Amino acid sequence: MSTLSPLVPFLGSILVSVILLKQEQSEKPEQQKKRTMTRNAVSMTKEAVMKLRRKYFSKSVSISYANSGPLMIVQGRGSHLIDENGVAYLDTRNNVAHCGHSHPRVVKAVQDQVAQLNTNTRYLHPNVATLGQRLSNLFPDPLEIVFFVNSGSEANDLALRLARACTGSKNTIVVDGSYHGHTMTVLEVSPYKYEQGGEFDLQPPKMGLKFQSPGRHIWKVPAPDIYRGPHRDIRTAGREYAKTVEEACHFYQKECGEKVGAFLLEGGMSTPGAILSPPGYLAHSVKAVRDAGGVFIADEVQSGFGRFGTSFWAFQHQHPGHEEEVVVPDIVTMGKPFGNGMPLAAVVTTRAVAEAFETNAHIEYFNTFGGNPVCAAAGLAVLDTIEAEKLQQKAVQVGGYLQDKFMALQQHLEIIGDVRGSGFFIGVELVRDRTTLEAATEETSYICSVLKEKYKILTSIDGIFENVLMIKPPMVFSKADADYFVESFEGAVGDMKAAGDVRSMEKTPT
Amino acid sequence: MSTLSPLVPFLGSILVSVILLKQEQSEKPEQQKKRTMTRNAVSMTKEAVMKLRRKYFSKSVSISYANSGPLMIVQGRGSHLIDENGVAYLDTRNNVAHCGHSHPRVVKAVQDQVAQLNTNTRYLHPNVATLGQRLSNLFPDPLEIVFFVNSGSEANDLALRLARACTGSKNTIVVDGSYHGHTMTVLEVSPYKYEQGGEFDLQPPKMGLKFQSPGRHIWKVPAPDIYRGPHRDIRTAGREYAKTVEEACHFYQKECGEKVGAFLLEGGMSTPGAILSPPGYLAHSVKAVRDAGGVFIADEVQSGFGRFGTSFWAFQHQHPGHEEEVVVPDIVTMGKPFGNGMPLAAVVTTRAVAEAFETNAHIEYFNTFGGNPVCAAAGLAVLDTIEAEKLQQKAVQVGGYLQDKFMALQQHLEIIGDVRGSGFFIGVELVRDRTTLEAATEETSYICSVLKEKYKILTSIDGIFENVLMIKPPMVFSKADADYFVESFEGAVGDMKAAGDVRSMEKTPT
Repeated sequence: MSTLSPLVPFLGSILVSVILLKQEQSEKPEQQKKRTMTRNAVSMTKEAVMKLRRKYFSKSVSISYANSGPLMIVQGRGSHLIDENGVAYLDTRNNVAHCGHSHPRVVKAVQDQVAQLNTNTRYLHPNVATLGQRLSNLFPDPLEIVFFVNSGSEANDLALRLARACTGSKNTIVVDGSYHGHTMTVLEVSPYKYEQGGEFDLQPPKMGLKFQSPGRHIWKVPAPDIYRGPHRDIRTAGREYAKTVEEACHFYQKECGEKVGAFLLEGGMSTPGAILSPPGYLAHSVKAVRDAGGVFIADEVQSGFGRFGTSFWAFQHQHPGHEEEVVVPDIVTMGKPFGNGMPLAAVVTTRAVAEAFETNAHIEYFNTFGGNPVCAAAGLAVLDTIEAEKLQQKAVQVGGYLQDKFMALQQHLEIIGDVRGSGFFIGVELVRDRTTLEAATEETSYICSVLKEKYKILTSIDGIFENVLMIKPPMVFSKADADYFVESFEGAVGDMKAAGDVRSMEKTPT
Repeated sequence: MSTLSPLVPFLGSILVSVILLKQEQSEKPEQQKKRTMTRNAVSMTKEAVMKLRRKYFSKSVSISYANSGPLMIVQGRGSHLIDENGVAYLDTRNNVAHCGHSHPRVVKAVQDQVAQLNTNTRYLHPNVATLGQRLSNLFPDPLEIVFFVNSGSEANDLALRLARACTGSKNTIVVDGSYHGHTMTVLEVSPYKYEQGGEFDLQPPKMGLKFQSPGRHIWKVPAPDIYRGPHRDIRTAGREYAKTVEEACHFYQKECGEKVGAFLLEGGMSTPGAILSPPGYLAHSVKAVRDAGGVFIADEVQSGFGRFGTSFWAFQHQHPGHEEEVVVPDIVTMGKPFGNGMPLAAVVTTRAVAEAFETNAHIEYFNTFGGNPVCAAAGLAVLDTIEAEKLQQKAVQVGGYLQDKFMALQQHLEIIGDVRGSGFFIGVELVRDRTTLEAATEETSYICSVLKEKYKILTSIDGIFENVLMIKPPMVFSKADADYFVESFEGAVGDMKAAGDVRSMEKTPT
């Protein structure tokens, strides 16, 4: 594989040319002209852009590959992002461009609607009403009522608000390593952030809490990790991990004499490192939460819209051979892929929760941009595309194929400790030792850096030890993309071995 | 005027036809075809849309004119919104469609960019870098660093986060009747919402607080209202009202031994009823806040981008004859008009605040959609349009003309108690008695209902007594629009008088 590598940028360019050619052949002359004009209009150099960014942006807004060389991306096509020199990068990480970057159906829907009208939901409009119906119909009963918002953060913020208005309790059970967004209320339930930052007065593990926490109302349970955690037998781990949720419920109910407010869980746990709820975990945990007066919020911002392949939402996921009754959440949040890049997100809940909110909060909920006809048009086009291009089935087939290929690689690459996930939501966990499970943190960073530099592949790293390759590509990711990715990964591991000890090298954040 | 009224819907249609004709003449044939196709594609009836809305939406998401007949709006052109029958409504309330509904420059910018790329700010892109520079350059020093987000709510949420990370204090001084957005943290500093709702455990006026509040860390000061409040002399009111802010600072500093975190104030106070800071108010209030360790956050979500006419931002507003030194905020938030309907908002702050955030929070700030190249393209087009069409000057001229016309009307219409504002940010306060200032709440509702039904004019009502006509039209509002609005208003007052006592009639929420 490594003998091929010098050709890769060149092959990338050819690939892009082919993609563009294919697209342009089906276009009318005036559309071709427009695209060419715009492409040429990107006349700033990367250095000039970088200079502005340094001057006017906070360092807290981070850039990918800041150490090894940030990318200026000016075009997106399918599973590829293209820089200012026409070099195409295979995108294995962007779950926002669900239907593929610049999908023609979404592009046309936005172009048509923006020329007509873009206003708020105080007026009736067919787009938002139809989108509400279609989204609602994608859920099992009794999930029915839809709120449109602008981002996954706004969705999780509103979900917590609904839960609190409906239960009267702020007590929230959250999972270690999870991230749910950037508003202050949502940060407070995101251990991934509040434990890193100095923003929260973290209270020590007293007051009955076992972990430090931004307040007694936040209880952190361990991620139900069957690779690295204390319970590793898939047949019993779900029941065992559910006990940590039961313990939290017991604390609030018995020791504090309070209700639980919400159990907030990602359908597929992304930042914790591509962790899926083991069989029995949801059933037992949610029963305890409901018995304690709380509601179950499934955060599908990263994992929804068919990404899991065998199910449309991750909360419906069944481990093969361990099928069980699906636990239906009280509230579901979604965001990233919903508008294929256009800011669109939503909360779906039951009529009972919505009515409790109407009664207890009795104030209007207004979101200026949420559900506007342009973003709603993008949402409708995304749902159409998922159906028309059978993207959910593609997640089963190509995602399954990709996972199998990594599993095959695991047979002879010692560094691959675990391969897990469902559909196009895949984690590849890298370790130094398959017995001790010592995390290969620096190695993961090095490999991802080589993947970007040499093989022109964009990846992301997750997990509390930053040693999990988190694979969430656009759903149009092809078998050829999968082949190229796995071969390049193997090549990058070879390159790393040739480079010597990478543990002392500077870490490259990706 | 009322003799003209039966013709109005018909005139509205003619007007729209003229607007469309004008636009279509300047378009190429293929664009004309596209628009016609889309226009015909809106084939659902209003009843069908209403039915979906009732089934899938929460009642807490409200509809304008719910009692008198909701509108289905399918097209926007300039200062008009157009329903499914082609009836055009003059829009006097929508400060989101800043450059006019469906402004061709914004439409084209979005259409071009969405076909190229829509991704996040982890990669460099000329649009977001250039927008950061241009936005930053619209502020006086030391305001410099820009954060892009999706909505005014997200902007205010982040502003509070910056303020808290930088001062180490959550104590926040807010203005009675104010609204800053819908995330939970932002609702907590919005008396307009938290006093209506049952969501917050409002604490009684003890613990040193003079008002009930969601917590000791929220201190509400009265709006500096020189029409209805205790201080009505423009020469001294600013100083007097600033004492209420000084009192809050004294409480936190002297009685609690704590810093003030932030003083959060709308540049133009919209929901409190079109209230402007009187001369001296900002200078004295902000001095007290800074002396107590706090920062000043100016919320320009409703009032920014030239709407005030004589100044680009409302915090820079000077009352004629009462000029003073401008107080530069530590943090400014903006949203609604920034993308002319596309979800785009921002926080601008000083390097000192940004660096304190980087140091104290030391976690990455990532916003998936914030600053994406499509919404950034809309933002750039908005800034271009403001400049090219001299919209700020237009706010001075046409806004001033409109305000003068209402003032002239005030001479013989007793119900007009006060006309105030700046540029295209105008309040017309309606009273039953100019001495007692008894609020004409039901009358305001009735008049706005007639304006919509008979004259096809969309209005909004603000103020704690819901008796202030809040005028914030698209900035392309013309002198002819102003004439038609003021004549219709006079007509509607006549219609109301003819109808008898409207106080007992059902109130029509607008």
